[in-house]
Amino acid sequence: MDLLSIKDPSFLKGLSNKELESLSQDIRTFLIEKLSGTGGHIGPNLGVVELTVALHKCFDSPKDKIIWDVGHQSYVHKILTGRACQFDTLRQYKGLCGFPKMIESEHDVWETGHSSTSLSAAMGMAIARDLKKENNYVIPVIGDGALTGGMALEALNHIGHEKKDMIVILNDNEMSIAPNVGALHNVLGRLRTAGKYNWVKDELEYLLKKVPAVGGKLASTAERLKDSLKYLFVSGMFFEELGFTYLGPVDGHSYEALFENLAYAKKTEGPVLLHVITKKGKGYHPAENDRIGTWHGTGPYKMETGDFVKPASAPPAWSKLVSETVRELAREDERIVAITPAMPVGSKLEGFAGEFPDRMYDVGIAEQHAATVAAGLATQNMKPFLAIYSTFLQRAYDQVVHDIARQNLNVFIGIDRAGLVGADGETHQGVFDIAFLRHLPNMVLMMPKDENEGRHMVKTAIEYNDGPIAMRFPRGNGMGVPMDTKLETISIGTWEVLREGNDGAILTFGTTIPMAMKAAQILEKQGHSIKVINARFIKPMDEKMLHELFAVNMPILTIEEAVLQGGFGSAVLEYAHEHGFHHAEIDRMGIPDKFIEHGSVKELLEEIGMTTEDVVERMGKMARKKQKRA
Amino acid sequence: MDLLSIKDPSFLKGLSNKELESLSQDIRTFLIEKLSGTGGHIGPNLGVVELTVALHKCFDSPKDKIIWDVGHQSYVHKILTGRACQFDTLRQYKGLCGFPKMIESEHDVWETGHSSTSLSAAMGMAIARDLKKENNYVIPVIGDGALTGGMALEALNHIGHEKKDMIVILNDNEMSIAPNVGALHNVLGRLRTAGKYNWVKDELEYLLKKVPAVGGKLASTAERLKDSLKYLFVSGMFFEELGFTYLGPVDGHSYEALFENLAYAKKTEGPVLLHVITKKGKGYHPAENDRIGTWHGTGPYKMETGDFVKPASAPPAWSKLVSETVRELAREDERIVAITPAMPVGSKLEGFAGEFPDRMYDVGIAEQHAATVAAGLATQNMKPFLAIYSTFLQRAYDQVVHDIARQNLNVFIGIDRAGLVGADGETHQGVFDIAFLRHLPNMVLMMPKDENEGRHMVKTAIEYNDGPIAMRFPRGNGMGVPMDTKLETISIGTWEVLREGNDGAILTFGTTIPMAMKAAQILEKQGHSIKVINARFIKPMDEKMLHELFAVNMPILTIEEAVLQGGFGSAVLEYAHEHGFHHAEIDRMGIPDKFIEHGSVKELLEEIGMTTEDVVERMGKMARKKQKRA
Repeated sequence: MDLLSIKDPSFLKGLSNKELESLSQDIRTFLIEKLSGTGGHIGPNLGVVELTVALHKCFDSPKDKIIWDVGHQSYVHKILTGRACQFDTLRQYKGLCGFPKMIESEHDVWETGHSSTSLSAAMGMAIARDLKKENNYVIPVIGDGALTGGMALEALNHIGHEKKDMIVILNDNEMSIAPNVGALHNVLGRLRTAGKYNWVKDELEYLLKKVPAVGGKLASTAERLKDSLKYLFVSGMFFEELGFTYLGPVDGHSYEALFENLAYAKKTEGPVLLHVITKKGKGYHPAENDRIGTWHGTGPYKMETGDFVKPASAPPAWSKLVSETVRELAREDERIVAITPAMPVGSKLEGFAGEFPDRMYDVGIAEQHAATVAAGLATQNMKPFLAIYSTFLQRAYDQVVHDIARQNLNVFIGIDRAGLVGADGETHQGVFDIAFLRHLPNMVLMMPKDENEGRHMVKTAIEYNDGPIAMRFPRGNGMGVPMDTKLETISIGTWEVLREGNDGAILTFGTTIPMAMKAAQILEKQGHSIKVINARFIKPMDEKMLHELFAVNMPILTIEEAVLQGGFGSAVLEYAHEHGFHHAEIDRMGIPDKFIEHGSVKELLEEIGMTTEDVVERMGKMARKKQKRA
Repeated sequence: MDLLSIKDPSFLKGLSNKELESLSQDIRTFLIEKLSGTGGHIGPNLGVVELTVALHKCFDSPKDKIIWDVGHQSYVHKILTGRACQFDTLRQYKGLCGFPKMIESEHDVWETGHSSTSLSAAMGMAIARDLKKENNYVIPVIGDGALTGGMALEALNHIGHEKKDMIVILNDNEMSIAPNVGALHNVLGRLRTAGKYNWVKDELEYLLKKVPAVGGKLASTAERLKDSLKYLFVSGMFFEELGFTYLGPVDGHSYEALFENLAYAKKTEGPVLLHVITKKGKGYHPAENDRIGTWHGTGPYKMETGDFVKPASAPPAWSKLVSETVRELAREDERIVAITPAMPVGSKLEGFAGEFPDRMYDVGIAEQHAATVAAGLATQNMKPFLAIYSTFLQRAYDQVVHDIARQNLNVFIGIDRAGLVGADGETHQGVFDIAFLRHLPNMVLMMPKDENEGRHMVKTAIEYNDGPIAMRFPRGNGMGVPMDTKLETISIGTWEVLREGNDGAILTFGTTIPMAMKAAQILEKQGHSIKVINARFIKPMDEKMLHELFAVNMPILTIEEAVLQGGFGSAVLEYAHEHGFHHAEIDRMGIPDKFIEHGSVKELLEEIGMTTEDVVERMGKMARKKQKRA
């Protein structure tokens, strides 16, 4: 059928299973084709075609609340709720968001990006429904990976206790982003194969009926045993223990099975967990055969072959550069242990894991645990390397404060995807890390200007023995600079003058350095001599250099690809006023006080006024003022 | 025996059970007596006397790592590791810390204060041990309440999966801080009574042996059934499912039972969970009979009667004032729902819960879930009141960013115990909240000058419909000011001039206002006329008032009982420089860049230079400069 003509999911009610199957095929073809051009989360979405269709047929969205955990699997939902026509703009600036977005549709009742929030959100919605004496279903859809996240477990526990009416769909695709870890996964594994034990249950009942009753005692044994049958043979025991009615496992690609179980779930009082088995990438051969998550989220690809459309040759990816440098150092230093919360592929730790299998821990989607495991290791004089995305480090804030910084432990935090990340949008922008780490005592925070300095910084972090040290680095690839062969440590808290000048100084670090350099060149031509400083240590700052700048009344422009409030620029302001330089002229450039949506980093920087032209204008203005004074 | 003579726990090895029982009695007497003078966590410590003694007898600390979750139950451990002589200074300035502290003893291998970190720390230590091929035990001791915390569940999952050698002691005292919630508690409840089902297991085995084998099929049924017996009749099923060997439940006050089980645990490979049943307050009648947690942590009390030594009459406690105002408003507004992560008593929500039992949710020690439940409620046009301590809000940082602020939901966060908290020390100081909330888009953050304004602010927060709004308030009691009868809303982002003046302005809020007022009076006598402003909105600030101050070159002193970096003072600096007031003279007073240990708030403020005298000196200096200029 013509997917572009879909306005809302109501048309599904009248379709037969056969028609739905034909629709599924159309949706798959549509996704495979569209995403070959835009890229996106192809694997997860191909896996939930039938599940999404079935949910929208069995429930009445938006009255019934379908809540997508993580949200990258909401493309089919977007198609069914009238957004097929926008798929050409998927994950592009001002285009369709790759995650649920309330502003796009009334059917998006909850926004996500980070994992494991759906059950708590559902609990809030269920409480509201009951207080308002309304009568709708609440249906969170959560993956088996997301279920290892602490807050999902907190929620399961609470929902089970409160016995709230809710239908939790456990979308068990046998593999979340990385091959899943954790005992919970084993439980799910056993549940997955539980079907074949059903005969045992019947047999046992038959058996018990034949046992002669030997007084009340044994009778009650049998009764109790029967009562306990539901716990036997693993199916759903874990969830039943927590207070859920467990249904499944069902084939998530069979409409018949889905409808039967959803109907039963709707009739069941209290919380239900429906265990649905799906296959990531279903229906697209290259994605179906993916074992390590390459097809979880992709850039553009050739539809026919599944070959990725990549630039011919690119400088090394930052994640790889950092992880491989840690690996190199791990050959010399046996104390180095790498920890990742479910991102071994994203953090490019495969090489490290291959070489040091017993020194690499993928702890699952469990950022809090990851951070404190690192702290525990550090108490034993080990050198933990916590590889984590900036946006996900937010979830371990308290562990960084309370366990790592407070105990002043030698943990090296590799903050990946720091700064704007582009297509993943506002839930994933790594723009808060400076503001939430800078105020922590004992914390060292740095960012390299290029991949060569990045390698030296990794060395620096590993050698550092005075507490926690974090290195931010951006999403994407390095700049292709020449690489030193020998790794050296960089003195903590030292900046580097990249360009001399007398009319003003630009203080910046990381990705915004090229912008600063270019602006300085332009300003040079306009008659302004601008100093550019690689302020690679955000904390501690190079106080000597700062002091010298202030002492000569140098106007200063700070640039950071991070939120302005409480950021690096604020640190410079704080220094100036703390040290009596009340007359210092300081201008700060960075992310304003709003959430930044998806788009290319270039487009986003333009939107918020962080371009070379802006630097030229703002630095130029101060330089002219100074030159006038002089 | 003379507890003061204990140097380390090695003396325990030679003691008989009878001698240990006599020692336990001595420890209890000591604790009851000492804590009657100092206050402290009496209930939890009386509950773990035998457990702590048994652990130190069976293991070799510090080679073996005993890790106390939360840590308020470490007093007995402190006595056994040579610190009895310091108990007169417990929780006092420069005295014995109420939590484990590495600097106090090599036996304190992990520091805590916040809950649910012990398992992750233990995992880090176990990984380190195995990599170093060392041979020690790792023994985290965690309460049943702490086990509902997401990171503990993340850790259980990971430890079970990795099968690390570890002996987890589940200290199940039937009641953590509040009557426990959550399905997990139900599981524990069933485990607790599991003993009586043991006969069923024997009976069943007998029964099965009598069943005639009817071919391989049934035999394997019986086999499988037998294999599943360990899952039957609840004992430990939950933990066994996760990969642990479950032992217990054992009587935590019986040395015989403890030694037998600990010996067995030591011999068992892989992770063991030893379920120990203890009674909070054991051996002290008033504390034993406590059902709501009054004896969890106390101030001084009369030893004989258990009567608390309290000031004759005090102004209302802040927690109570806020919760009762919310309750009052909840009578008019049915949308108000209160949420607490395990602190109904601390947050004084008993009255609210009594009047609106279906509108109050204690979600257990689960701050992340609590915050997102609030967000879920807000999506349904409800008015959630999230009652949470400043220090524990740290654990929900990502949920505040990603779920509440990003979706701009109307959640009212009541930030209790903001600022310095005193005796609980560095893990509990509520000094980071401004720095970690101020940089979030959409967030309103305020703090009232007294309890009367506090009530109006609660009204303001409930009426506010443009996104999240947070109110900080301090630990302890109000100031005894007269109270308005009618509640009014305060215009968002407006400050209040408390005192006029021309030579300088002090900008402050909350607890530091009296200090500012007093300093202004002293400065008045010295010939300086100082304006004092109640900067009750930390975000958004009163830009009109700020602008006026800067426009007349008023020197400004900001004071905040919170970290300086990225705090309120920084916001003032940011404003000045963003609006071209580069010459503004601004001095900032607040918590410096270090963790602040325990002591009275007064002592701590003196230590960090935040007294009336400091204000007089710093404001006076600027005022003199301005007067000289004029």
